[in-house]
Amino acid sequence: MSKIKATNITWHEGHVGRDEREKLLKQKGVLIWFTGLSASGKSTIAYTLEHALVQRGHLCYVLDGDNIRHGLNKNLGFSAEDRAENIRRIGEVGKLFVDAGLITMTSFISPYRADRDTARATLGAGNFFEVFCDTPIAICEQRDPKGLYKKARAGELKGFTGIDDPYEAPLKPELVIDNSKCTPQEAAVMLVELLEKVGKIPALAE
Amino acid sequence: MSKIKATNITWHEGHVGRDEREKLLKQKGVLIWFTGLSASGKSTIAYTLEHALVQRGHLCYVLDGDNIRHGLNKNLGFSAEDRAENIRRIGEVGKLFVDAGLITMTSFISPYRADRDTARATLGAGNFFEVFCDTPIAICEQRDPKGLYKKARAGELKGFTGIDDPYEAPLKPELVIDNSKCTPQEAAVMLVELLEKVGKIPALAE
Repeated sequence: MSKIKATNITWHEGHVGRDEREKLLKQKGVLIWFTGLSASGKSTIAYTLEHALVQRGHLCYVLDGDNIRHGLNKNLGFSAEDRAENIRRIGEVGKLFVDAGLITMTSFISPYRADRDTARATLGAGNFFEVFCDTPIAICEQRDPKGLYKKARAGELKGFTGIDDPYEAPLKPELVIDNSKCTPQEAAVMLVELLEKVGKIPALAE
Repeated sequence: MSKIKATNITWHEGHVGRDEREKLLKQKGVLIWFTGLSASGKSTIAYTLEHALVQRGHLCYVLDGDNIRHGLNKNLGFSAEDRAENIRRIGEVGKLFVDAGLITMTSFISPYRADRDTARATLGAGNFFEVFCDTPIAICEQRDPKGLYKKARAGELKGFTGIDDPYEAPLKPELVIDNSKCTPQEAAVMLVELLEKVGKIPALAE
């Protein structure tokens, strides 16, 4: 059995709280929920913001299709029920990350208002910032980096948001970004300033 | 539109990598998977370890019944299929936390070897430490903090691990702890020393 030595620990009962983790990280946990059409700029803005925050010493994590659809949600399809469960699980995982103290971003089309409102309720007031990437569909369709709009227009993809499936715009998002009118960098700066304003991160000294 | 000013950012393409987050945190991500009978000491040791690590400035998070069963996995019951899905989701969430750079602990009985092996494979070599809380069932049953063994013996609880449902002991756990022979503090010290030894956290200066 090891002797209690180098660790020099004061022993405590019970859990370490969110506030202790946030103190350690010098930031407050928050879920920044990007929503908008395919190719509206969600992921690009999220990753740009992530780089900006990491440079300032903040711990962030982006939940997106790459790490969620191939992992936690790989047993879900695209039925209405599975789409709702997809967003529910993302909200619940986001809640755990926020409790861990991270500035957490989710980048999913998340077209239905009810699903996003469920996530908002799961996170609770002050923990959920809905960012509506309100880039006009004509611009998104011009960009079409994965050729998905083309396939949807040709009828090769069914149930594509904005073409033959609805996108329900947020009614009271914390921020609206039209990525045809600003760069991802400008959008990231708006978000950094928002995070400073609400005290999630400290402002830089002038 | 905001001007790009105080943020003083160098803009990057693509994702921030796990290595960058680990550098920021001065630690390496790992999933410490506690397994063992009810009342074998899993949670107590996990929370004790968490306090010890936070005191040394490390960011940790414990996934347990409280934050998982009432959130992400609240739509799962106790059928064989649901139990497997419960553990699968915990492994996938653990993988995201480890990718985020956190020293992550899970505290679940997780009685089936196949489920734990799936989690091990999901995490990959070097990211998964299985800690077997091998406290004799007689001791666990004496402790019985929630009166569950008593109910199981009385036949009021069916399918209780160790009574009328099997516990499959790990074949090659990274650590075995008999919590009837050491305190949670002594167990936590063993784990801190293991994390130092494998380079997940830096050793303290003598």
